[in-house]
Amino acid sequence: MNIKEVKRALIGEPFPTSHEIHERLDKVRALAIFASDPISSNAYATEAIMSVLIVLGSGALAMTLPLAMGVAALVLLVVFSYIQTILHYPDGGGAYTVAKDNLGTYPALLAGAALLTDYILTVSVSVSAGVRAVTSAVPEVFEYRVWIALLAIAFITWVNLRGVRESGTVFAFPTYAFVGGVLLVIGFGLVRYFGLFGAPPLPHMEETVAPQESLAGFAYIWLLLRAFAGGCTALTGIEAISNGVQAFKPPESRNAAITMVAMGTIAMSLFVGITFLATHMALIPEEAESILSQMTRNVTQGGFLYFWVQFFTAMILFLAANTGYQDFPRLSSFLARDGFLPRWMQNRGDRLVFSSGIVVLAAISSLIVVVFRADEIAMLPLYALGVMLSFTLSQAGMSNLMRKVGTLKPGENMHTGITRIHYESGWRWKRAVNIIGAITTGVVFIILTATKFAEGAWIIALAIPIMVYTFYRVHKHYDKVANALTTEHFEEQNLGEVADIALVPIADVHRGTLLALQYAKRISSDVRAISVSTTPAMHQRIEARWARFPRLTDGVELVIIDYDYRDILEPLVNYIEHVNSTEFPCQLVTIVVPEFVSSNMFGQFLHNQTANMLRTRLKYMPDVIVIDVPYHIAADEKPSNDVTQRYLVL
Amino acid sequence: MNIKEVKRALIGEPFPTSHEIHERLDKVRALAIFASDPISSNAYATEAIMSVLIVLGSGALAMTLPLAMGVAALVLLVVFSYIQTILHYPDGGGAYTVAKDNLGTYPALLAGAALLTDYILTVSVSVSAGVRAVTSAVPEVFEYRVWIALLAIAFITWVNLRGVRESGTVFAFPTYAFVGGVLLVIGFGLVRYFGLFGAPPLPHMEETVAPQESLAGFAYIWLLLRAFAGGCTALTGIEAISNGVQAFKPPESRNAAITMVAMGTIAMSLFVGITFLATHMALIPEEAESILSQMTRNVTQGGFLYFWVQFFTAMILFLAANTGYQDFPRLSSFLARDGFLPRWMQNRGDRLVFSSGIVVLAAISSLIVVVFRADEIAMLPLYALGVMLSFTLSQAGMSNLMRKVGTLKPGENMHTGITRIHYESGWRWKRAVNIIGAITTGVVFIILTATKFAEGAWIIALAIPIMVYTFYRVHKHYDKVANALTTEHFEEQNLGEVADIALVPIADVHRGTLLALQYAKRISSDVRAISVSTTPAMHQRIEARWARFPRLTDGVELVIIDYDYRDILEPLVNYIEHVNSTEFPCQLVTIVVPEFVSSNMFGQFLHNQTANMLRTRLKYMPDVIVIDVPYHIAADEKPSNDVTQRYLVL
Repeated sequence: MNIKEVKRALIGEPFPTSHEIHERLDKVRALAIFASDPISSNAYATEAIMSVLIVLGSGALAMTLPLAMGVAALVLLVVFSYIQTILHYPDGGGAYTVAKDNLGTYPALLAGAALLTDYILTVSVSVSAGVRAVTSAVPEVFEYRVWIALLAIAFITWVNLRGVRESGTVFAFPTYAFVGGVLLVIGFGLVRYFGLFGAPPLPHMEETVAPQESLAGFAYIWLLLRAFAGGCTALTGIEAISNGVQAFKPPESRNAAITMVAMGTIAMSLFVGITFLATHMALIPEEAESILSQMTRNVTQGGFLYFWVQFFTAMILFLAANTGYQDFPRLSSFLARDGFLPRWMQNRGDRLVFSSGIVVLAAISSLIVVVFRADEIAMLPLYALGVMLSFTLSQAGMSNLMRKVGTLKPGENMHTGITRIHYESGWRWKRAVNIIGAITTGVVFIILTATKFAEGAWIIALAIPIMVYTFYRVHKHYDKVANALTTEHFEEQNLGEVADIALVPIADVHRGTLLALQYAKRISSDVRAISVSTTPAMHQRIEARWARFPRLTDGVELVIIDYDYRDILEPLVNYIEHVNSTEFPCQLVTIVVPEFVSSNMFGQFLHNQTANMLRTRLKYMPDVIVIDVPYHIAADEKPSNDVTQRYLVL
Repeated sequence: MNIKEVKRALIGEPFPTSHEIHERLDKVRALAIFASDPISSNAYATEAIMSVLIVLGSGALAMTLPLAMGVAALVLLVVFSYIQTILHYPDGGGAYTVAKDNLGTYPALLAGAALLTDYILTVSVSVSAGVRAVTSAVPEVFEYRVWIALLAIAFITWVNLRGVRESGTVFAFPTYAFVGGVLLVIGFGLVRYFGLFGAPPLPHMEETVAPQESLAGFAYIWLLLRAFAGGCTALTGIEAISNGVQAFKPPESRNAAITMVAMGTIAMSLFVGITFLATHMALIPEEAESILSQMTRNVTQGGFLYFWVQFFTAMILFLAANTGYQDFPRLSSFLARDGFLPRWMQNRGDRLVFSSGIVVLAAISSLIVVVFRADEIAMLPLYALGVMLSFTLSQAGMSNLMRKVGTLKPGENMHTGITRIHYESGWRWKRAVNIIGAITTGVVFIILTATKFAEGAWIIALAIPIMVYTFYRVHKHYDKVANALTTEHFEEQNLGEVADIALVPIADVHRGTLLALQYAKRISSDVRAISVSTTPAMHQRIEARWARFPRLTDGVELVIIDYDYRDILEPLVNYIEHVNSTEFPCQLVTIVVPEFVSSNMFGQFLHNQTANMLRTRLKYMPDVIVIDVPYHIAADEKPSNDVTQRYLVL
């Protein structure tokens, strides 16, 4: 079974390009697919706030609910703002597209870099949180969590490399099962909280945690800001719908906007509900069991519903990770298309997916999982930073777009480069919302960076500028290439002239070199065999062997260079340079290299790598063309028993 | 500073081949150089016996001296046997040479493999023991011993890559300083032992170790055999002189033989002396401090002489490691010369040393140091195995040689292939000694393998056959190559015919591909450009651009292959195979590949690696010749600002 067959078995038969499917989703399935990321944030967002407040002791956890309300308000603002984007960019308007259309190249690259970091962390965080849902229910496997997480990433990678062709139905179930399960838990919790139907009151945790710190004034506010920043992870993934408007059934924009509102409502109901019950029961963040698991266990007393919620928490989190596999390869293919990433990142693989993007994403997110020991709470300081920056840029871009809308007269329309805009009556207040959104998310971005800097946000603060610089360097390189290859102002006679010379470096005279000589004689009337001799014996031997083949060597000059060192590459290259510069300046000189090809790796390894090194050196010489004349050793060639019969190959 | 300059700074300017120095050594310096390995064994050989016996408690250490005497007797037998070898192989007679000359190829390969393992362990063991001499005196650095050992290996490697051109004097001092120092300590020890000159009696260690085991009968004998096997490490390096007879001043053989006797005498005096005093003082093996260090400390009460001995113990051990750097590269160059190792192992580097052998040795011995945490006592079970096997084979070979000597009449002589032998009157008893030597060392080899198998000897027992098999495979491959390249029974007209066709795979029409087309037109009258189009837009684009260059494309057929998958390598290769098999069967078909060359690595990475993959595929096709027409992007090319102007390159 060779590599190709292994690939076929794993990935499946290649799809023809024309088989591409453009599936359209109804709102119910679209919600499930696009909302898994923001809805699944509920598995850790409340905990992210509580784990900061706990340093002030159990008492401070009462601040969790007000902070969660603040996060919920932010979510609604962003949702409203993105509805504008959906309506104006019906072909898909991620932050990169909107920033490129309205703010220019550098803001767009900034948004692109920010989103790429965000997508990577979506995978790492969601998978780790999913594994924690598993280990909360089955504590025995806690010590294997890194391996389980890596296995999950490998599985998701495999599914995505095969290409996901199943209808949205398969994906819809876990999302609704999770939402339904958590809503039931919240419902039961509220019934018990209000003492309805004679239900037993909710348990209140007795154990309290003493304050580790006592803070006042600015330090207290700083801590609240840090807790708020933690909760902002609930905002990740909100932008997904704006990228995928074309996946909706018509009317696309309208359906996408309605789905967006539904998504925001559901996500925020769960977030506030979970936070309310968790703080009321005075739950304490623990490493081994998540807050959501503790809450569900206490409300349901660990019955069937508990395992239902835990199971679908894990499922929806793995689905959320899967959205990273949709977003990252797509955005990197956009960047590659625009010349900011290596162009091969826009090539689709055998199964019509962006294979290289998928592999890069899997590698980086696995690395993060290993470094952070699959602890998603520790990763959160890196998360949400990218998404906030992209929100800010996207809304700043939308505000610019709205200004342009304002310049149109009723009935007028214009094309911005990416989308077509029409006059809108309410452009002023829409623009105001965008500006408020941009400022708010911008401030939250600064809070996030400042409060989480030492905990890991510095990694992202460092990575984003480096990525933008890389985009710039890549783009500059492609420009250089385009310039060099351009056929503008190009005269057909301007190409280099080919000199009538063929130089054949040889180490010995054998079938391989004789074949190369024969080829050289066919393409040139001035053929010279060049041999570097390091001992007098070698000199004599090559002359003697040369004389044995009068027909093939007829008309060919034999140049033997005597050399008192062992590295024969130097004199060969020097001779070639000398011939080029003195006899054929500014012309293309042809080098015919007899190459010895063995059918197995073992054979390749045994031979002096001189031919390879020579080829590499010649490749960088400006006026040299290399011809490889391979001489094949068949695998079934019978070995002779004559040990003394040896030939030198380059 | 590029790689070449770094190499120059580290290794120095290259030496011309003709500068080779054949320094001749007098006996005093030769002894120092060749004897460092066997003499330095005294740093650990006694301890190797004691560390086995200690499981029976302190009382059992009394058996150390009798066992050491047995080892000393074995040394004298081997020394005497090797003197025969020296006299009969004045050009150098290592076990490989002797076995090849008298026993045949496979015994020679066995000897070669055994000696290579031995030389590797010489480095690992000596360096580790040298570091232990340091850490015995300076216990504070004990925890850094692995790093110190690796640093020492790196230093010795560096010295050897530069090429050791200093006279033997530099090397002579540490050896004599060590021998002198230890003899002084033994002398003082004996003075105190016999109570001469009113010296205080030797201290007797109070602490005793209780037996961990109690053995009787066969188990007791087995333990004694294991202890004896440990002591046999004292024999390593004895054969060095036989390899280096040519380094002596004339009369070479005689001087070498005298030096051999001196070496054996000195090494054994030290061994027996150290063992006598160590057992008399009832020293106990410890991990942190060697027996030699304990003994010296007790005799000298830790004065200047103690530090002298410790310092020169470390020095002579590093010198002993250095002998591995002489022997391993030389033996592997012999094996490479005879076609049993890759031929490049016989190439000498810039400084006329066998650089690849040195690097391979450094890598493997460092690995062993890391795996065994620089604990030479733990490595000893692997050591001495190879040397015993090579002794056995060498002496068996000598016994065969002596049989041949016996067939000559007085005054007659004959050439064996490697050396010339004459009639000798005493051949019978000389042969008897060789046979006894072969049997004895063979039995010791079996004892070593059996008693140390579980402790690590299995590694060597596994490595040696694998190495022999590799030698065989390498040799078979070279035979196959020689057979394929042979010009025997070769008719000059038998070489493949070159078809008048040039296929040019192109991705786009730009300066690079136009240059390739121009070159193809020069060498062939039937030129076809082949382009794989994966979308209708690509198809149209290439046709349109083709039409723009009527002069260069005149007479060239444009073949566009429409393909509904993304991997364009397949249709290209299929087309080439089709043309080859249908239009030009059994003829050489030429492929001209326009290759895009960027001046930096970054640029290479950015481009589709299709051209490289195509070249690799074509290399293994039997009737295909590849021409690379490079198109260079200069480093100072000014980038255009026209982002939309992009060209596809393969």
